[in-house]
Amino acid sequence: MNSYKDNLRKITPYVPGEQSKEKDIVKINANENPYPPSPKATAVLKDFNTESLRFYPNANATMLKKALAKYYGVGVENVFVGNGSDDVLALAFQSFFCSDKPIAYPDITYSFYPVWCDLFNIPYTTYPLDENFRINLEDYKAQNGGVVIPNPNAPTSLGEGEEFVRKLAEYNADSVVIIDEAYVDFGGYSSVQLTTEYPNLLVTGTFSKSRSLAGLRIGFAIGSSELISVLEAVKNSYNSYTVDSLSIAMGIASIEDDEYFKTTTGKVIATRTRVTDEMRALGFEVLDSQTNFILATHDGYSMKELFEYLKTKKVFIRYFSLPRIEKYVRITIGTDGEMDRFLAEVKNFLEGR
Amino acid sequence: MNSYKDNLRKITPYVPGEQSKEKDIVKINANENPYPPSPKATAVLKDFNTESLRFYPNANATMLKKALAKYYGVGVENVFVGNGSDDVLALAFQSFFCSDKPIAYPDITYSFYPVWCDLFNIPYTTYPLDENFRINLEDYKAQNGGVVIPNPNAPTSLGEGEEFVRKLAEYNADSVVIIDEAYVDFGGYSSVQLTTEYPNLLVTGTFSKSRSLAGLRIGFAIGSSELISVLEAVKNSYNSYTVDSLSIAMGIASIEDDEYFKTTTGKVIATRTRVTDEMRALGFEVLDSQTNFILATHDGYSMKELFEYLKTKKVFIRYFSLPRIEKYVRITIGTDGEMDRFLAEVKNFLEGR
Repeated sequence: MNSYKDNLRKITPYVPGEQSKEKDIVKINANENPYPPSPKATAVLKDFNTESLRFYPNANATMLKKALAKYYGVGVENVFVGNGSDDVLALAFQSFFCSDKPIAYPDITYSFYPVWCDLFNIPYTTYPLDENFRINLEDYKAQNGGVVIPNPNAPTSLGEGEEFVRKLAEYNADSVVIIDEAYVDFGGYSSVQLTTEYPNLLVTGTFSKSRSLAGLRIGFAIGSSELISVLEAVKNSYNSYTVDSLSIAMGIASIEDDEYFKTTTGKVIATRTRVTDEMRALGFEVLDSQTNFILATHDGYSMKELFEYLKTKKVFIRYFSLPRIEKYVRITIGTDGEMDRFLAEVKNFLEGR
Repeated sequence: MNSYKDNLRKITPYVPGEQSKEKDIVKINANENPYPPSPKATAVLKDFNTESLRFYPNANATMLKKALAKYYGVGVENVFVGNGSDDVLALAFQSFFCSDKPIAYPDITYSFYPVWCDLFNIPYTTYPLDENFRINLEDYKAQNGGVVIPNPNAPTSLGEGEEFVRKLAEYNADSVVIIDEAYVDFGGYSSVQLTTEYPNLLVTGTFSKSRSLAGLRIGFAIGSSELISVLEAVKNSYNSYTVDSLSIAMGIASIEDDEYFKTTTGKVIATRTRVTDEMRALGFEVLDSQTNFILATHDGYSMKELFEYLKTKKVFIRYFSLPRIEKYVRITIGTDGEMDRFLAEVKNFLEGR
């Protein structure tokens, strides 16, 4: 007997992490920025003509694209915007990975890549990071249907430079290479400028980390006008109005306030350096982060126990129960005050208190 | 020779309508609401704790779901929310239309349905509306992979009642029936309550029309917990955070301000009645609208010419160069003042001025 249940999509639900609403917690588990968004962006919100919300947003978010184009020194036709970089990446997967050959990405990387491959029926291969958690560039010489690599990578925090991205784009001239730069503003190398040289290179970014606007949902992509026009066609076949009017207005103000951006990302980087040094002094192995988080382990202790101990002290870090990284914890860089509390509790843990 | 271009998605771009930024225009072409959003919703914006935007939104938009559940008298597990009803419908197509059999919808209806079918490779059949632009219920007795019908339909403005939806759900017990209620709040019959009786029935809605929040992007769906859980699984495999923090907060305030909602939708309905009467007095045939727009034609005149004449007078209505409706124009109901200007220009057109 037939049933409507036969036609339902069979998919293993991805369960997003819960956000704690408790007070007096140190929330350094979601790579959020400890500093508020640019005061110029929040001023836009206070002055916004709310009556205009009865109109649909500009479907192309043209003014936001112009602000990004000016900031990155590219043309408006080289910029795409979406509802967070997850939306941008999901659309890019649908737009560029239409080959029968598998796409390629590292075994330890952003956990959404296999989820999108399953959702869109895209075949994929993963290449293991080496023993130092570095990407082996030569792996990506193999024939593939596309490549996606976060740079810096997550959750390793490690970044690659210009030569790496150039070779990656050259090795894969017959497929699209996506560089996911969600964390690049904390000291990584950005390959945005290379998109003018490599028409098969797409760079994605987000306002959720370095611009403290995770709550707004703004992501973007930069690439050749050909790649961008395919992204636009797929997006306009899905939902014409993905970026709302408030996000467009606040996003522009954020981009234009470069001084605040440099100050706050600089503070995160300075705190990261200090926390890395202090943790190493406590016997931790800490990878050289180019992001707003660090990946750390300690020979003498279980990191899962550290994670659970800190939770009882209302300090929330991230532990991945996954092959190869189950001996590590990921710690988002918070304010200096938050990291002092974190470090104090880490010392208590090490001392067995 | 291989090229990255071989792997790009081939799709005919859907080009969204342009939004005019001119002053002193009468914009009655996009079915937007002429009244501003609830003052209680905009007050939320002014008082919003902008620092909290550095955090990701609640991935499940739980508080907004709770407000909708209370409003509609259903459980929280029966409510889904998304980035506008286009996002909700696109996810529903991916979630529920996984059959090899074609899905069914009317030949004259929301233009996005075939676009989503093409994007997601869903086979489809269309059934022609009858000569009065009504849906022939018996057409939907045929075997199909799912049904989607807007009620009221667009751009016809005509609505169906409880018996129609009950039969539709019963005829199609082995597939999912989606009732797209984008325009229902302007006097249509809502089948939300029927979702408790028919586990294969999904009702979708939007904050863009009756709640004057097109600029924010909030859509929702109501159905059995089984259908909602599949929608959630697909959404969480695409983008965990589709509804931003500001939209969640403003959406809740909008739902809670029922007095304002009833006042403004009542005003649109009253203006619609008056405009319909006046146009009929001028010799127009106007369909009996249950929406915030009317579909009209006039035996003695070309509606394309009316559309173009009005454009020169900065009165923007909608004309569809499509089979069967190319003799009609679609006019969104604006304020009384806007409709007076529209009617005056219509008279000028008829008098050949």
